[in-house]
Amino acid sequence: MNMESPVAESPEVLVERLAQAGRSAQRALALMSDVQKAKALKAAAAALRDDEPSILAANAKDLAAGEAKGLSGAMLDRLKLDSQRIAAIADAIDQVAGLADPVGEVIDRRERPNGLVLSRVRIPIGVIGIIYESRPNVTADAAALCLRSGNAVLLRGGSEALHSNRAIHAAMVRGLESAGVPSAAVQLVPTQSREVVGAMLTAAGLIDMIVPRGGKSLVARVQADARVPVLAHLDGICHTYVHGSADPDMARAIARNAKMRRTGICGAMETLLLDAKFPASVALVRDLLDTGCELRGDARSRALDARIVPASEEDWDTEYLDAILSVAVVDGLDAALEHIATHSSHHTDAIVTSDDAVAERFLAEVDSAIVMVNASSQFADGGEFGLGAEIGIATGRLHARGPVALEGLTTYKWLVRGTGQTRP
Amino acid sequence: MNMESPVAESPEVLVERLAQAGRSAQRALALMSDVQKAKALKAAAAALRDDEPSILAANAKDLAAGEAKGLSGAMLDRLKLDSQRIAAIADAIDQVAGLADPVGEVIDRRERPNGLVLSRVRIPIGVIGIIYESRPNVTADAAALCLRSGNAVLLRGGSEALHSNRAIHAAMVRGLESAGVPSAAVQLVPTQSREVVGAMLTAAGLIDMIVPRGGKSLVARVQADARVPVLAHLDGICHTYVHGSADPDMARAIARNAKMRRTGICGAMETLLLDAKFPASVALVRDLLDTGCELRGDARSRALDARIVPASEEDWDTEYLDAILSVAVVDGLDAALEHIATHSSHHTDAIVTSDDAVAERFLAEVDSAIVMVNASSQFADGGEFGLGAEIGIATGRLHARGPVALEGLTTYKWLVRGTGQTRP
Repeated sequence: MNMESPVAESPEVLVERLAQAGRSAQRALALMSDVQKAKALKAAAAALRDDEPSILAANAKDLAAGEAKGLSGAMLDRLKLDSQRIAAIADAIDQVAGLADPVGEVIDRRERPNGLVLSRVRIPIGVIGIIYESRPNVTADAAALCLRSGNAVLLRGGSEALHSNRAIHAAMVRGLESAGVPSAAVQLVPTQSREVVGAMLTAAGLIDMIVPRGGKSLVARVQADARVPVLAHLDGICHTYVHGSADPDMARAIARNAKMRRTGICGAMETLLLDAKFPASVALVRDLLDTGCELRGDARSRALDARIVPASEEDWDTEYLDAILSVAVVDGLDAALEHIATHSSHHTDAIVTSDDAVAERFLAEVDSAIVMVNASSQFADGGEFGLGAEIGIATGRLHARGPVALEGLTTYKWLVRGTGQTRP
Repeated sequence: MNMESPVAESPEVLVERLAQAGRSAQRALALMSDVQKAKALKAAAAALRDDEPSILAANAKDLAAGEAKGLSGAMLDRLKLDSQRIAAIADAIDQVAGLADPVGEVIDRRERPNGLVLSRVRIPIGVIGIIYESRPNVTADAAALCLRSGNAVLLRGGSEALHSNRAIHAAMVRGLESAGVPSAAVQLVPTQSREVVGAMLTAAGLIDMIVPRGGKSLVARVQADARVPVLAHLDGICHTYVHGSADPDMARAIARNAKMRRTGICGAMETLLLDAKFPASVALVRDLLDTGCELRGDARSRALDARIVPASEEDWDTEYLDAILSVAVVDGLDAALEHIATHSSHHTDAIVTSDDAVAERFLAEVDSAIVMVNASSQFADGGEFGLGAEIGIATGRLHARGPVALEGLTTYKWLVRGTGQTRP
């Protein structure tokens, strides 16, 4: 007990209170139909559009405070809302409303010789905590995805976006409540105290899953401290292996796209493995160098172009998220598989080849969440996978891997229907 | 670094070495066919039968040491092997060999408008750590299930069973190796140091999942200390609610069976909720009292039979694992749902009713891994569910819930087959 401020709730008590309110809202939500949930989300999107003036006013406060605090231009840009961005946020909610509801899906059904009928059905996970940084759109995106899959959500955003998050949250809750969803289904943590994050991370049994959304240091801290299961999205050290049989034009186009389309996303290629037998390596690396990419290579790759600088041992384990690429020349599929097994972060790895047997071995033997043949690793994305919006790309091995959308926000229970069976 | 004994490996280094050996064995295992893995397990079962004399000799050492240490009769019985028990262990391995291999199953397949073909296929989890107590059969059971699903396993059994575990492990490995499985696929931790358990629990990235098998205190310690995901099996505070419409004979038979068939299993009923409208409550509680069950009741249930003693608040949250049962009289389905939501451990909860609408509400609203209608909660078991042998009954909400067999020992990866697609 804190004797100095007996009135204030401790972070643990606060989190317990929020989580319990969330749990009881979630029980109500779990019983709502697909149609009701979709309607509620559409009402939330409409309320968000209606509240544009107050959201912009709140955002202006955050921007002013951010400038006063000396936030970087990039940070301020992430924080900034305008009419177009608010419209995009509302549209994204409408899109989530339009996704198919995974809850209630029967995954498995079996009848036992004794007449018991077993079915495994998808249900919401329960209470999900989202811990995120300065982008205010996460408030709406994450809330919409959790709600669409029947979960209650506790949102804890960055302090830079405090006023914006509050305004977005207030609009959404008004819309949701107008459609019969209890307000505690979407709660914004009312304080920016850092201790509250710690209390969320250790609230086992109260919060069922934590999803960190933000940079590596945030995710790493959450993973290190959490006692609650975490759906974490860590490094994307993605490889593209260009096999000797690869079509040269295809390989060049894929390499350019995988690295340079957007360098800052987790599906961007970070290491290029060129087979010694691939005949167009010189042209391929020249493409990348000419578009302004820095190449850091092993001795053999440096022979391809004088502009390639030497790679250090660290480079093979680095996610640049920038116009930098490590390059190695390898002898055949086994050497490529070995390099990938040693250095991949198991996010997305790709091969370019025209040999089907080689492609199938690569698909079978690479142990990553996503394994691709003849495609750019930048397709690693829930939208591109046809899953709708994603809550994140999971790099853990359990529960969900790769792009995680609504289905990854569900779990299941077993229903057993009997006629009086007792166990012998 | 430990300067006092520079030769000895630290627990962390030992676990890292074992896990890495396991990882590379697992890569080989992941490529073995269903038939090969089944054959290897059959060879392991045969080797176990061949080694009966040496296993019995090892077990005699453990029993002698246990007696000298003053282990209880129940503990010694758990530890004891004889011809029949060794045969049962070997038969169980043969049974696991006969189960369908989940690895390679295509869970989902979708073709995108751009021609990318996506499939989600089941793969092994990787390296699984099993931490268990004195039953030597776990060595064989857990190894067989992990191996059948393509995982490598690190076994850390109780020190009481050290010699027995070593003998069983040696036999299995000899059999597996004869069929081409690398010995590091099944490793027994070579020391009983407690620090090694700690090192296993924190070996994130080296060990992919920990399965504790044993009593509550072991499981709780593992859950508290683990940084690696845990497939934990905690309390089974299972409820049976007898609705007013329940068939009296069915309700009596189910209540007797759910409580008294075996009182020590996690699926045993621990709380009975009798609807005030159920007409045969007096007979039902008398059945239980007459078979020697202690009943601890609320005021209303105590009016049913003078032998019912008062329940304390604690009783509603207690897993007795014994011939003791808490009993309450409730008014209708909503009161029963509320009691279950408050006190259930979310393992297995059941209703007895002849009203289909009530049954469906119970199935929908009870948030437990297993929800049953008109059946004894003692059916909560992988074998009874038709899943084959189980590695445990999971009480967590993510990855796997309820009885966990081979499928729960797998995860998935996404395969993306393209024809040169780059992302716009």
